[in-house]
Amino acid sequence: MYEKRIERTMEKLEDMGLSQMLIVDPMSIFYFTGVYISPFERFFGLYISKDKENVLFLNKLFTIPDNIEIKKVWYTDTDPVTDIISEYIDKDKVLGVDKELKARFLLPLMEKNHAKGFVNSSIAVDITRGIKDREEIEKMRLASKINDEAMAQFKGLIHENVTEKEVADKMLDIYLKLGADGYSFTPIVSFGANAADPHHEPDDTVLKEGDCVLFDVGCIKDGYCSDMTRTFYYKKVNDHAKKIYELVQKANEEAEKIIAPGKEIHILDDTARKIISDAGYGPQFNHRLGHFIGLAEHEYGDVSSTNDWELKAGMIFSIEPGIYLEKDTGVRIEDLVLVTPDGVERLNNYPKDLEIIG
Amino acid sequence: MYEKRIERTMEKLEDMGLSQMLIVDPMSIFYFTGVYISPFERFFGLYISKDKENVLFLNKLFTIPDNIEIKKVWYTDTDPVTDIISEYIDKDKVLGVDKELKARFLLPLMEKNHAKGFVNSSIAVDITRGIKDREEIEKMRLASKINDEAMAQFKGLIHENVTEKEVADKMLDIYLKLGADGYSFTPIVSFGANAADPHHEPDDTVLKEGDCVLFDVGCIKDGYCSDMTRTFYYKKVNDHAKKIYELVQKANEEAEKIIAPGKEIHILDDTARKIISDAGYGPQFNHRLGHFIGLAEHEYGDVSSTNDWELKAGMIFSIEPGIYLEKDTGVRIEDLVLVTPDGVERLNNYPKDLEIIG
Repeated sequence: MYEKRIERTMEKLEDMGLSQMLIVDPMSIFYFTGVYISPFERFFGLYISKDKENVLFLNKLFTIPDNIEIKKVWYTDTDPVTDIISEYIDKDKVLGVDKELKARFLLPLMEKNHAKGFVNSSIAVDITRGIKDREEIEKMRLASKINDEAMAQFKGLIHENVTEKEVADKMLDIYLKLGADGYSFTPIVSFGANAADPHHEPDDTVLKEGDCVLFDVGCIKDGYCSDMTRTFYYKKVNDHAKKIYELVQKANEEAEKIIAPGKEIHILDDTARKIISDAGYGPQFNHRLGHFIGLAEHEYGDVSSTNDWELKAGMIFSIEPGIYLEKDTGVRIEDLVLVTPDGVERLNNYPKDLEIIG
Repeated sequence: MYEKRIERTMEKLEDMGLSQMLIVDPMSIFYFTGVYISPFERFFGLYISKDKENVLFLNKLFTIPDNIEIKKVWYTDTDPVTDIISEYIDKDKVLGVDKELKARFLLPLMEKNHAKGFVNSSIAVDITRGIKDREEIEKMRLASKINDEAMAQFKGLIHENVTEKEVADKMLDIYLKLGADGYSFTPIVSFGANAADPHHEPDDTVLKEGDCVLFDVGCIKDGYCSDMTRTFYYKKVNDHAKKIYELVQKANEEAEKIIAPGKEIHILDDTARKIISDAGYGPQFNHRLGHFIGLAEHEYGDVSSTNDWELKAGMIFSIEPGIYLEKDTGVRIEDLVLVTPDGVERLNNYPKDLEIIG
């Protein structure tokens, strides 16, 4: 499995005219090796090469399982790490580097001419990671299934006078009891006008009748992330809120409906955005339609108006249109979807019709 | 306060022959502006310049307080962000860049010759951040005071048959009740042989009589981090464990005792390491003596054998010698210390003499 993933990436590097790459995103290294480390400020890298041996660079303080087959090079805190890396790089060829490689490591590699040139070749890794293999699809389905079950319980946390923070503080337990390993990101719980900020953090706002209740939540299961948004209304909903809810629902459903291999990704954003813009809310849908997801909650790949990638079976991303009315209210409806050979499989099945709770 | 911090950094940049810098570490931007954002994959940067206006670059999706005085430049997900940044850079001069600046932004800036040259100038920010001002020292004292109080309660979680994970799961509540805002890092709870791995994560290991119980823990309060390690013994301690405990304690205390402005930092590591090496455990103390800390749990600045910085009043760092015996046991004793005009102030006051619990 790991060898196949490195092979798929190497093919893409060759298409770019490259034969070697230095990967540093810990999630990518996990994807290629099964080794996960949070290196903090220390260097942790995987060098892959068509002509030479693949090498994992590790600080002696890192602990990894015994059964990792790749060649390992250990260094200590006092070793000149970029010099050590350079011993393994083919200096006569351009080195592809991870987009996450930091200036503190990249500039010394460049200054000492440790390769013929340096280019950001993360796209080769990202496109590989963007198309999930069978093992990953199973794990993504499970993480989203737990998220569906959790959503049904989250709305049960809503009652008179509750605050966003009180609700949010109870979510982790629900996830853990459902078998998740933790959050995939800090949950967003927004009441009323707070929902107008797509990235609002739960605070002491007290729920009141007529408020929208927006949950943007996800868990991790076996390393893979889920991410879903639903917007409910507490006790009642006014006509304007209902109108924008139904618009967002339509934008979500129409964009999901047309997903199929071979189409360009921007068509999804275009479709959702047109529905919202035609109704006069274009400026109030102020973000892209979605993002890729997998081992990380945000993976490379926009579902946006500027991405002309072709949809391919195995891609998993979010479809999350929204309308945000400042100091008033907000709606977002988000599912994860899997592109299948025939079309699309929705990974989230929690209902989307407007729901009044409490 | 913010202006003074930028001024101090600009002086250091000028010493390096620089007049402009692009800062991207979110904690550094918070330090200079009071604006904290987790930008994920989006660009978030602060440009500071001797000759031109300072500029904060923000994605339109970010939300910041209204009262931020610095010039703001907003971009959207579809804008070419490195081109926008380049409009503000002085192209005829070298640009200092943050060590955290990622290849995805640095390489395009370099390829388009958006400055005369690019150097990692983070040291100017790091040295500024490394010397805490009065407001910061007060906050660091408070975070460590809470950590002392928490340590006294953590040992109360120890009882027959408890697992590391069961103990760790109760720690956040204790911190929150003591007034902390959260963990500064995921707590390390290690029983027995697990303590031989300095970065062990709490697992289902069950406590048994004679085990060491190592807590490496910290909280955040008002944005500032604490970090302390104590090693206890459950019910009894054998002679060998006692011997290495006392060695580590001596290494910790002797290194702390000699702290004073004007000395070079490596002397602290040398002192602690000599005590441990002379007793034959040199290879079993396999990491640096300590690290700087403040807004982040690990800030730039090693307390290691290779750092010849001069100690200055206002520096805060950890002193954390350890001895790790594989498949057997481990000891680490860690305090945070503040360099004062006269010498040193220990921020942690939880006792260090060997303590048998349970």
